[in-house]
Amino acid sequence: MRGNIVKKYTESNPKTFEDRMCLILKMCKDAVQDAVNFNCRLLGVGISTGGRVNPQDGIVLHSTKLIREWSSVDLRTPISDALGLPVWVDNDGNCAALAERKFGHGRGVENFVTVITGTGIGGGIIHNYELIHGSTFCAAELGHIKVSLEGPECSCGSQGCIEAFASGMALQREAKRLHDEDLLKEEGMDMELAEPITAAHLIRAAGNGNSKANAVLHKASMALGVGIVNILHIVNPALVILSGVLASYYQAPVQHVITERVLVSAQSIKVVKSELEEPALLGAASMVLDYATRRTY
Amino acid sequence: MRGNIVKKYTESNPKTFEDRMCLILKMCKDAVQDAVNFNCRLLGVGISTGGRVNPQDGIVLHSTKLIREWSSVDLRTPISDALGLPVWVDNDGNCAALAERKFGHGRGVENFVTVITGTGIGGGIIHNYELIHGSTFCAAELGHIKVSLEGPECSCGSQGCIEAFASGMALQREAKRLHDEDLLKEEGMDMELAEPITAAHLIRAAGNGNSKANAVLHKASMALGVGIVNILHIVNPALVILSGVLASYYQAPVQHVITERVLVSAQSIKVVKSELEEPALLGAASMVLDYATRRTY
Repeated sequence: MRGNIVKKYTESNPKTFEDRMCLILKMCKDAVQDAVNFNCRLLGVGISTGGRVNPQDGIVLHSTKLIREWSSVDLRTPISDALGLPVWVDNDGNCAALAERKFGHGRGVENFVTVITGTGIGGGIIHNYELIHGSTFCAAELGHIKVSLEGPECSCGSQGCIEAFASGMALQREAKRLHDEDLLKEEGMDMELAEPITAAHLIRAAGNGNSKANAVLHKASMALGVGIVNILHIVNPALVILSGVLASYYQAPVQHVITERVLVSAQSIKVVKSELEEPALLGAASMVLDYATRRTY
Repeated sequence: MRGNIVKKYTESNPKTFEDRMCLILKMCKDAVQDAVNFNCRLLGVGISTGGRVNPQDGIVLHSTKLIREWSSVDLRTPISDALGLPVWVDNDGNCAALAERKFGHGRGVENFVTVITGTGIGGGIIHNYELIHGSTFCAAELGHIKVSLEGPECSCGSQGCIEAFASGMALQREAKRLHDEDLLKEEGMDMELAEPITAAHLIRAAGNGNSKANAVLHKASMALGVGIVNILHIVNPALVILSGVLASYYQAPVQHVITERVLVSAQSIKVVKSELEEPALLGAASMVLDYATRRTY
């Protein structure tokens, strides 16, 4: 089982619930059609989504304002009805952990955590080879681990969350702030150009010696590292797997913060970078593989 | 099974490893003698201790500087050899969780966490009716959840830990600071008296309207509350049980911080106060009851 993606369909996320559901159903039907061309039998539908998910019922319970109109949404029934296939749904962070368990660094590891640093920050926790979902399906909301009592405001409505310090969104916010104050200058980089300012600019500027950009990234790394130290002091996994666009950047500094700040007993815990291309999507697929073929429950 | 303590022996903690082991062995032998008078059969020895513990081997792996000379200590072998009885050892926080599971608010609860706010801060996490020990026996080190990137220095050598904000030690430190600055005054309270300044003075002063004392307690409650929010966002237990001398004080403010700062999906989670007299000791006893009688493993 190598976890190769045979075909991928990408669409931008519609703003309303109705448009989003229509698009999902259309993409599912397209995939059913295309499967014939690949000589594939579809075993079922696996869905990875943002927000808190009840995977037993296939329902998105609640989302932050990052995904509008995405609370109390039954995803299983309409898709299952339209396609005549079983449907499994989980949170994107949990799906990423399932992918690491089946295809990635988490294979055969009893306890590990995966932290996804992309636009937001999410994650999943494997304990005794199984996901921790929690009493109200709110476990492993790792982006909302708080490392400051005041700190920056977060999309969840609270503050001090590692997502508000270290996510792609947070770095973009800081990059824009520096740019507006004319502090993101660097040699050979024309900041007047039309391309939007992103975290990548910040990382490039820091790499070229921009001390303001460096300070922002240092704080972001510290926040993410301390957030992960909190995970180590709560569930003490054997391995931390970073994924998402910022994983390459964060791996070394996070390992450094852990070594500095964790209790002696947990200092041997390693931070590795995921080798999977799309962990959340692969994890959604792995639910179908595992449940439809009854390999594991 | 009511969890009553029949007899309790109390001694202050010797500073050296040798003196401590001698005292423990002496107290164990006294208890063996006394058991005859109570017409009791001793099933075994259960030990609750600070520090990280490998309960499979009965070894204290590592302690912070709160307990000197208490790392890599095999507790099982000498006690088992001296008494001819089986010996079970776990961390005090884990023991407290076992006590809540057997005798307290945790009975029949699949997932809960207990947080002990005494001199330090400790805790235990029950998931699927069992303790989470973690990959290096460092799980549920709840006192070392960090809620500040800078914050006060902690006994663990790091900083920003909730123990450094909200433990009895931390409140005593702040009470002494206010006292030294002559800011802990209150009507009818003679701060010149010989009794040592403690957290209790701080709480009393705050209750009498001392705004400096109030500010310290507000920050401590916020830190503890945010630390517990982090637990809710990582393992999402169904219940939070507070124990220790400061539990009565912290229950209401911690519940308030949770309501304000946790994700919507976890806002229904209740904070209750333990009704057990000595949860860590009862939990140590419960290991003996459960393991020696093979009721659970």
